Amino acid sequence: MRMRVLVPWGDLVVPAGVEVSVWDGGEELPGGLGDVEFFVLPYDRGRRPVELIAELPAVRAVQTLNAGFEEILPVLPAGVCLANGRGLHDLSVAEHTLALILAAQRDLPRWARAQAAGVWDHAHTRSLADSRVLILGYGSIGRAIERYLLAGEAVVTRVARTARAGVHGIDELPKLLPEADILVAVLPGGAQTWGLLGAAELAALPDGALVVNVGRGTSVDTAALTAEVAAGRLRAALDVVAPEPLPSGHPLWSLPGVIITPHVAGGSDSFTPRARRLVERQLAHLVAGEELENLVVPGGHR
Amino acid sequence: MRMRVLVPWGDLVVPAGVEVSVWDGGEELPGGLGDVEFFVLPYDRGRRPVELIAELPAVRAVQTLNAGFEEILPVLPAGVCLANGRGLHDLSVAEHTLALILAAQRDLPRWARAQAAGVWDHAHTRSLADSRVLILGYGSIGRAIERYLLAGEAVVTRVARTARAGVHGIDELPKLLPEADILVAVLPGGAQTWGLLGAAELAALPDGALVVNVGRGTSVDTAALTAEVAAGRLRAALDVVAPEPLPSGHPLWSLPGVIITPHVAGGSDSFTPRARRLVERQLAHLVAGEELENLVVPGGHR
Repeated sequence: MRMRVLVPWGDLVVPAGVEVSVWDGGEELPGGLGDVEFFVLPYDRGRRPVELIAELPAVRAVQTLNAGFEEILPVLPAGVCLANGRGLHDLSVAEHTLALILAAQRDLPRWARAQAAGVWDHAHTRSLADSRVLILGYGSIGRAIERYLLAGEAVVTRVARTARAGVHGIDELPKLLPEADILVAVLPGGAQTWGLLGAAELAALPDGALVVNVGRGTSVDTAALTAEVAAGRLRAALDVVAPEPLPSGHPLWSLPGVIITPHVAGGSDSFTPRARRLVERQLAHLVAGEELENLVVPGGHR
Repeated sequence: MRMRVLVPWGDLVVPAGVEVSVWDGGEELPGGLGDVEFFVLPYDRGRRPVELIAELPAVRAVQTLNAGFEEILPVLPAGVCLANGRGLHDLSVAEHTLALILAAQRDLPRWARAQAAGVWDHAHTRSLADSRVLILGYGSIGRAIERYLLAGEAVVTRVARTARAGVHGIDELPKLLPEADILVAVLPGGAQTWGLLGAAELAALPDGALVVNVGRGTSVDTAALTAEVAAGRLRAALDVVAPEPLPSGHPLWSLPGVIITPHVAGGSDSFTPRARRLVERQLAHLVAGEELENLVVPGGHR
């Protein structure tokens, strides 16, 4: 059995019978796409990959490497299945989250200032170990963050929209916040999470608590957080803010106790190898007649 | 059975029969120390705790919370056993090591400069995931570092003085260095490790590799490392250097690709709870007639 696939990389490990055509999203399309059955959209290459789907008459499965897939739905032919890139950025986000937490706890901004001044002057710092960390929005990214936290002997509390075994429901937040030394928000955007961490929630955190946001900026009331940090009561380490970009001159840029990175948690080298491995597994599934992983639109009979 | 102990904290959980006297190293010594059998030296309080050992006629076990115990040996009465604080700083050092590695890989210095300038401008960074990390001086701190690294899906190679199962010997270093994206030195000081990472060893690392030192500064040839970093070939994240403190005006303070912290890896909040738990376990061992943990001088019959 032969199966032609169109993928962004020419050096994947593929099962016998799979014939690979390569397109990385550049100007030049390979010829002979009439029999392509599986198409992996090149990552971050704009609209052209999405439009190409309609030009593949034999396609029966499409793979996007993004978690979001809304823009593909209107062009997906009936009966063609679609898988997404859920999870491919998890580890990158988790890494950056740990970088932010450890930088705040071990006072890296202080040492960076000392380095710039050429001054060697040590001091005792906070620790991550034993810190009570509340992960708000516990899902696959939260699990990756948790693996790091447990390696560092932090004490983790998990909160998600709905309570389940080992995970608190969002309704329990008021009683959990006073016990959190570090609050890590990994919430998606949208109306349901908008302003979820407002003045009352932030006020419920203990003195000196660290607010980390690696989800969406809109889940935190920026003005309320700024006020708490300006008062010296809370600290913050933010990869996302609302609005984004943070306006020039905003007090969060310069308040002590604040670390800001410009929405870079997901963008690191860890993505590509994981995307390649997912595609290699998907090819094996296709050849074995198995269902794809990360299926968001099931296929059907044509 | 009654047993009097002299410890630095008044609120330990102690077994029945243990009578606690408290001394935190301050001016005021409690009275009635004639029957103290177990003495835990207050941490980081200079010579007075060491001298007190000779003033405790009934003492049969001494606990220091430092890893080093050389200064205690001359005053330790014959037959009295001594336990040290090995391991109590491990997690603190591991945490700081991860802070340094993640700061370097995720380019926190770049974002700190952007924050200071109030500029939101994102970019792709390196990752820890998939990085090949060589831990040089693999022991209890190395294990704590490794737990973090494995949570982050790095690929770890262990090197110690002597090869053992799963651990390479130091003689294999020349062939391992070219495969290390990140080299973490956790070596002790002393003649055996002096200059172990010299010009030849550093030259064997691949372009762009990160040299992390959280052991002792003397194990790295500072001039050779400075030259490699100045050439843009290697990066460095150093909690220890030689000489220490790093002299004002030394090029390492200001070279791009260098992160310096002033020997603070061991000094964080994670120490005290672990020290307290060790002492609580030791009290249980004493009451049960068991051997102490971390025994460095065995006791004897008096």
